[in-house]
Amino acid sequence: MGIAQTPVPPYYVAVITVERTASDDGYLEMADAMYELAKAQRGFLGMEWVYDAAQRAGITSSYWTDPEAIAAWKQQADHLLAQRLGQERWYRAYTVRIARVERDYHWPT
Amino acid sequence: MGIAQTPVPPYYVAVITVERTASDDGYLEMADAMYELAKAQRGFLGMEWVYDAAQRAGITSSYWTDPEAIAAWKQQADHLLAQRLGQERWYRAYTVRIARVERDYHWPT
Repeated sequence: MGIAQTPVPPYYVAVITVERTASDDGYLEMADAMYELAKAQRGFLGMEWVYDAAQRAGITSSYWTDPEAIAAWKQQADHLLAQRLGQERWYRAYTVRIARVERDYHWPT
Repeated sequence: MGIAQTPVPPYYVAVITVERTASDDGYLEMADAMYELAKAQRGFLGMEWVYDAAQRAGITSSYWTDPEAIAAWKQQADHLLAQRLGQERWYRAYTVRIARVERDYHWPT
């Protein structure tokens, strides 16, 4: 994962925090496919994700121009399938937070 | 890491995305100490973090009542020391994004 190159704020972020089950069956393939699908969506700015296999925990942070783009992504058909598979197979619990980025800073500057 | 139990929005999030150096020297001890320190700050609501040792990447997501609480945390003395140590030793690059959480949802509901 590299740090996403996002524009000057404001823009939007969807932070998804996941507690995973013991199953990795198909998970990484799904995650790669969702990234490719997100990249093709209107308003997509970037995505970062980190997954700790030992802790069974993950955070995905995706960046979007506006909340409508996030809502459209949430309703995208293949993404809905991945969400349902996730609830059945890979996820024990998750929280999604939609937030408006007001400022950001970088190091090295 | 467990999913942070945050109140009904609005609240604030600081998302820190890190590209790490090869050094783990003192890193986990620092991270634990910063969590304990953050918990004692005014306005702290919760923190989640995931670190992938193989990818040398991490995301920390901390939750706060308001942007002033985040600004105060950024200026806290021991935290400043950790930031400087991080730039010298543990971090190759990082981005901090301060955002206002407008909505969140949970599964299982």
